[in-house]
Amino acid sequence: MPLVVHKYGGSSVADAEKIKNVASRISAVQKSGTGVVAVVSAMGDSTDELIDLAHSVSGQPHPREMDLLLSTGELVSCTLLTMALSDLGHEAVSLTGSQAGIHTDTSHGRARIDRVDTARMQKELAEGRIVVVAGFQGITEGEDITTLGRGGSDTTAVALAAALEAGRCEIYTDVDGIYTADPRVVPEARKLDEIGYEEMLELANYGAKMHPRSIELGAVYQVPIYVASSFNDTPGTLIHGNPDEKQPEEKQMENRIKVTGIACANNVAKITVRSVPDKPGMAAALFEPLAQSGISVDTIVQNTSEDRTTDISFTVSGDDLTAALAKVEELTREIGAGGMVSETNLAAVSVVGSGMQNTPGYASRMFRVLADGKVNIDMITTSEIRISCIIREEEAQEAVRLLHRGFQLDEPE
Amino acid sequence: MPLVVHKYGGSSVADAEKIKNVASRISAVQKSGTGVVAVVSAMGDSTDELIDLAHSVSGQPHPREMDLLLSTGELVSCTLLTMALSDLGHEAVSLTGSQAGIHTDTSHGRARIDRVDTARMQKELAEGRIVVVAGFQGITEGEDITTLGRGGSDTTAVALAAALEAGRCEIYTDVDGIYTADPRVVPEARKLDEIGYEEMLELANYGAKMHPRSIELGAVYQVPIYVASSFNDTPGTLIHGNPDEKQPEEKQMENRIKVTGIACANNVAKITVRSVPDKPGMAAALFEPLAQSGISVDTIVQNTSEDRTTDISFTVSGDDLTAALAKVEELTREIGAGGMVSETNLAAVSVVGSGMQNTPGYASRMFRVLADGKVNIDMITTSEIRISCIIREEEAQEAVRLLHRGFQLDEPE
Repeated sequence: MPLVVHKYGGSSVADAEKIKNVASRISAVQKSGTGVVAVVSAMGDSTDELIDLAHSVSGQPHPREMDLLLSTGELVSCTLLTMALSDLGHEAVSLTGSQAGIHTDTSHGRARIDRVDTARMQKELAEGRIVVVAGFQGITEGEDITTLGRGGSDTTAVALAAALEAGRCEIYTDVDGIYTADPRVVPEARKLDEIGYEEMLELANYGAKMHPRSIELGAVYQVPIYVASSFNDTPGTLIHGNPDEKQPEEKQMENRIKVTGIACANNVAKITVRSVPDKPGMAAALFEPLAQSGISVDTIVQNTSEDRTTDISFTVSGDDLTAALAKVEELTREIGAGGMVSETNLAAVSVVGSGMQNTPGYASRMFRVLADGKVNIDMITTSEIRISCIIREEEAQEAVRLLHRGFQLDEPE
Repeated sequence: MPLVVHKYGGSSVADAEKIKNVASRISAVQKSGTGVVAVVSAMGDSTDELIDLAHSVSGQPHPREMDLLLSTGELVSCTLLTMALSDLGHEAVSLTGSQAGIHTDTSHGRARIDRVDTARMQKELAEGRIVVVAGFQGITEGEDITTLGRGGSDTTAVALAAALEAGRCEIYTDVDGIYTADPRVVPEARKLDEIGYEEMLELANYGAKMHPRSIELGAVYQVPIYVASSFNDTPGTLIHGNPDEKQPEEKQMENRIKVTGIACANNVAKITVRSVPDKPGMAAALFEPLAQSGISVDTIVQNTSEDRTTDISFTVSGDDLTAALAKVEELTREIGAGGMVSETNLAAVSVVGSGMQNTPGYASRMFRVLADGKVNIDMITTSEIRISCIIREEEAQEAVRLLHRGFQLDEPE
């Protein structure tokens, strides 16, 4: 029997009616003769409510406890969906991350999947059951519960699709695919029929509402990921191996702009370490301990100066700022730097496109569009298929709109 | 280091402030040099909310799924209490039923504990940690989550106290001990300083807000159980091996009334199977399948009649009525009985006391009190230390008040 992995986000299972709707959708697939493993996120805002609850009892909740607490959100939605499937006459079974064999490392709050032991899932599938798996969570060798971080259910779904060798992974959410920009910000944004893993990874890393690690996993295991709405049957977006390669030669030769979309990540914070001694090993001395503390550093800029010292600036998620500052203050003393300053309420706007690397002029065009819009650029960073500018958060939406228009993404292909 | 097991009910952990209060209480015990294992129930009404949620997606939620769903309530309170303890500077760790090694049979919704594997708890205690265990839940050999039934956290606590050989088990709740009757119904009810396991078992079986199985376990393993309020330091009630035996001889000879308390169980339903053939094996043919379906039958009364058939009446919890009726309807046909009728909105009022069995006249006194109060008795059942009458639920509170006064329980000992 063919097998598909579905993933339903929090907004798709936000209440009883929506859960029953999801059950109907899964039921139709199962009845058509395809086995289904469904991965679910926690209902609506319930994860945020659990986080608030934790902060109401503790100034700094212990990460291990936070993980066990947050894992309950997915258990609730997972059992409810299973009950709804039973009510439709299906044999269905809910599995916790542990029961589904999702083994992770011990990095609470941002655990990574080591391996998936599919024995229990295979057994349930072989007995004709629909398997409903609690997303976002796993278990360590020491049998402690871990979570994979915000949006981790996407990664659960792709990991299960890879481990079970399912035909594809379908991510159902409250938007009907991947757009050239956030449609709430840019009303004329266009939906993409398909997109390559690499471009999608850049979009996800820079603001699109998907877990970047799920895209990475999809690329490594070549799992096609289909993103669509759980509320209607509008065709969605297929994320798969470089779609450009499959396009007819003429299209490649059109020499038109190859930008795929505009992404925007809010809640960016910037830390600058001043007067760092200008000698080898300083960057490593700074960033290794941060990485070991589990703090993800994004953009890094180093400005040389004249007095044999240098300033190093970098961005982190606003959520990590307090932890990062505590660590950096310590490191500043250790490496003999002059001091540190931080800035919050920044955003990263990015122009992403797989055709960009072969054609000059994208960066200058981006800067021109922002300059014409009087948006000040704080930092710049580029990859082969992305150019990002750090700007003030309050100007981010306008910047996305300007760039979407500036790169003619509103014009049909 | 001496060890104590605490259990905190839902009302004691109903919100952040109450959880912090519980953390302070545990903290004081730990600081005094006694190790603590704390068992917690779900916050306030959260179990009821989860049940409502289940019924909003499914007409008859699958028991396996219901168990996994309900188990999350205790995980939430358990992690929150652990966070609050960490904030007070303690090393604390939360354990799920599974992590705490609570192995049960597979009777979802009313699982019984087979054994407790204390290895993980012992390890955490040896490292000086306060161990916080999610009550009410366990795990089967097949690694499915089970729950122990309403009030099961009491049983978890006593089982852990027995397995860990703790000095005693302290049950903290929103009342400050065991009373001669429910103080909300009988304002002049008196708190008992101590009570024997057997009497407490009868009180618990017939309405006192404790899990009867916890008392059974306490009696078997001789774990002293102390019941007190988590909101104040008023002395509570100690449940232990026959306290009467320890009383001075004079007290035994006082020939005063030996009734300990009046219990009342609401939500009782009665099923009568009519015209059952009057031959051997009929009761077994009826009650064995009910037991196998996990339906607890309480009072059973068989009325012989003249035409070689008999009526068999019995009571079940109102919650089990639908399931029981479905089963009984089937059995009625199988055994060739005449039919069945059911009645709901009944209550069982009981007079309980360890001295009763040696002294005649308690039953007749009970019936007289009820008769004087114009309370009609539907069924009667007795044990060595209890007399129960099934009456209409709407008359139950008045009956409890009448009996409390009638047996002079309002007079100081």
